[in-house]
Amino acid sequence: MNILDLAKKAKDAKRPLANLTSRVKNRALRQMANGLKNHQDFILKENKKDIRQAKALSKSSAFIDRLTLNEKRINEMSRSLKALVDLADPVGDIIKEWQAPPGFNVSKVRIPLGVILVIYESRPDVTSDCIGLCLKSGNCVILRGGSEAIHSNKAIYKVLTSDLVSSGIAGGAINLVTQTEHLIVRQLLKLDHYIDLVIPRGGKSLIHQISRLSRIPVIKHYEGICYIYVDKDADLKMAQNICFNAKVQRPGTCNAMEAMLVHREIAPIFLPKMIKRFQEAGVEIRGCKRTLRFVKGITPAKERDYRCEYLDLILATKVVKNLEEAIKHINNYGSHHSDGIITNNSKAAADFLKSVDSACVYQNVSTRFTDGYQFGLGPEMGISTDRLHCRGPMTLEDLTTYKYVVRGKGQIRL
Amino acid sequence: MNILDLAKKAKDAKRPLANLTSRVKNRALRQMANGLKNHQDFILKENKKDIRQAKALSKSSAFIDRLTLNEKRINEMSRSLKALVDLADPVGDIIKEWQAPPGFNVSKVRIPLGVILVIYESRPDVTSDCIGLCLKSGNCVILRGGSEAIHSNKAIYKVLTSDLVSSGIAGGAINLVTQTEHLIVRQLLKLDHYIDLVIPRGGKSLIHQISRLSRIPVIKHYEGICYIYVDKDADLKMAQNICFNAKVQRPGTCNAMEAMLVHREIAPIFLPKMIKRFQEAGVEIRGCKRTLRFVKGITPAKERDYRCEYLDLILATKVVKNLEEAIKHINNYGSHHSDGIITNNSKAAADFLKSVDSACVYQNVSTRFTDGYQFGLGPEMGISTDRLHCRGPMTLEDLTTYKYVVRGKGQIRL
Repeated sequence: MNILDLAKKAKDAKRPLANLTSRVKNRALRQMANGLKNHQDFILKENKKDIRQAKALSKSSAFIDRLTLNEKRINEMSRSLKALVDLADPVGDIIKEWQAPPGFNVSKVRIPLGVILVIYESRPDVTSDCIGLCLKSGNCVILRGGSEAIHSNKAIYKVLTSDLVSSGIAGGAINLVTQTEHLIVRQLLKLDHYIDLVIPRGGKSLIHQISRLSRIPVIKHYEGICYIYVDKDADLKMAQNICFNAKVQRPGTCNAMEAMLVHREIAPIFLPKMIKRFQEAGVEIRGCKRTLRFVKGITPAKERDYRCEYLDLILATKVVKNLEEAIKHINNYGSHHSDGIITNNSKAAADFLKSVDSACVYQNVSTRFTDGYQFGLGPEMGISTDRLHCRGPMTLEDLTTYKYVVRGKGQIRL
Repeated sequence: MNILDLAKKAKDAKRPLANLTSRVKNRALRQMANGLKNHQDFILKENKKDIRQAKALSKSSAFIDRLTLNEKRINEMSRSLKALVDLADPVGDIIKEWQAPPGFNVSKVRIPLGVILVIYESRPDVTSDCIGLCLKSGNCVILRGGSEAIHSNKAIYKVLTSDLVSSGIAGGAINLVTQTEHLIVRQLLKLDHYIDLVIPRGGKSLIHQISRLSRIPVIKHYEGICYIYVDKDADLKMAQNICFNAKVQRPGTCNAMEAMLVHREIAPIFLPKMIKRFQEAGVEIRGCKRTLRFVKGITPAKERDYRCEYLDLILATKVVKNLEEAIKHINNYGSHHSDGIITNNSKAAADFLKSVDSACVYQNVSTRFTDGYQFGLGPEMGISTDRLHCRGPMTLEDLTTYKYVVRGKGQIRL
């Protein structure tokens, strides 16, 4: 189908999809979750084609890892769909209701956003996650995955949508763009009369390019240059455990710590032990001048290290003279994603949590918890680094907007 | 000051402004409200310069009317500022607070958006409204009014900001761009590292141009092609009063009715009387074929009449065969701003209110009420016709975003 027809069909499905009951949506989600398991062999077979091609093109092992499906990953996809069944349906929620001064009743009612375009790269599990999130929130979705994962995406799409119409879901509600030409993305981004929101999921350059080209509003899930500041009033054992976890547990994620600030009063005691533990785990340290004074033989940090999303076992460290320097440094060098303070001083914590301008701010918790599930909000579309519409984990509720419903008795304006 | 320095200064003022107490903001708002009255003569004198120039340039009388200040308008500006004092401060509000599964506490806390750029045309009262709204919501503002109102805007800006620093408001919090070159707007729209949101206020072409040029997110306050549908189960007297009010009371506003749909069963009784009343008030009717059957001698409507924001005493009318046709027509031809149904049939009302995809949907109330004050939400920045971030009247709360504040006891991710 050509791209314009596909977008029109999606737009036409907006109203029936917005009116679906939770029961119908949940039944479809359960069917999808079971479908993934029942057709696992088919999906894995198709996925192998993509892997073969990626290998033939000498793609990196990290790339092939992101592309690869296995029983465990298919189970996770299935579990994600089932998790959505248990979450409250945001559509139709009355956010607020009141009597306005002229005597009529106003309710602010949650409704789906409309048609959402998701542009992503090589991870085929994104296909299933986005289909589930959009369905539960009553949104039509247009999926445009990377050409490297096209066989996998087609297989997942086929399995998830095979029974849809018999489940009462409108045709046009869920769409996969199968044309792999790059030009297609440019065309899609012009269709602001049909598509209400674009969510790019992937690397910096993809997101950057889409934001610049799009006529449709974009919510960006940009980089995470996450900081932890170890205050002079920190419990040093807790600080060590949290910093170690935030850096090492899964360094390739956007909520992993990339840089650590340490108050100068505790730096002489804290830094040598902490850095030793990091080094034993294979973490390369890039330290400021003062760090180098306390620990010998590490790489000096350049200014750009403090703005770098390594996504790897590398950590920039800096000794700061006080809380204020830490706050200013984080606001200036960080990416406003997730930043934490380790302290038992409630005044310092309050100041940090208020003044650090990030989507998620933490006291005495690892930054690795920035995640829809961990927050108790369910599966997420990503972590928004934008300020408008939604910030932080983008979960079901963030895929909605609202309308004002006004009921009166003939009021006219004087 | 050059534009980049001005934007930097505004960004630097973000943190002190976000941390202001309600008391300090309210004191400044009261001072501003009094200042407008105390310096009324100065403002009116400067405004006369703009009016003289507009007349010399043979601007239209509507243009000159928008530009003109008088005692009444200055009183309204002053009252708007005072109204903000009485409204609750949205900054610091805890939207939601809960215990997340890993055992830490999460609160979703309202914070200012940051730096807001407002680009507007000839109405100098916008200067004072925006300064008030941004200050109360803790946002820094950069104002760029039309060059035709530059003397008025400078005068209002001078009066409102003369005592600011002594009131405890950071320098850089409120900024007026005094360069009148068009190029300046293009430069401003590139400053996405300093400015968080652009709000264009003015005609379609201004808004269109800014959306296309901007690297900064834009919230559009676009046109209002508002419909009222008179259902077969309407109280016809109420219907007549509401439709008359929605069209005639102030036709130049975005929430005035531009087109009226009538169920065919009641059209023969309702339309002749209604149209007679409209015509007596000087309203030109453009009717569909069926309308022409019931009322002689009126202009036939062309298709484009149903997509037209007249902002004038002109009304398109159409007879529809049922509710479903009305809903489809409005979703297709309207601008998703404010649309109403007149009916006493609760099923028809529920269907209309649910299915018409507009920011504000009305049952038995004039569309003229789409307005922050009328909704009980206070002064507004405009009526958002976008779906993201905010829809409908954009009031104090809509000038905020939020952060997640997480407090724990050493939680690490396993």
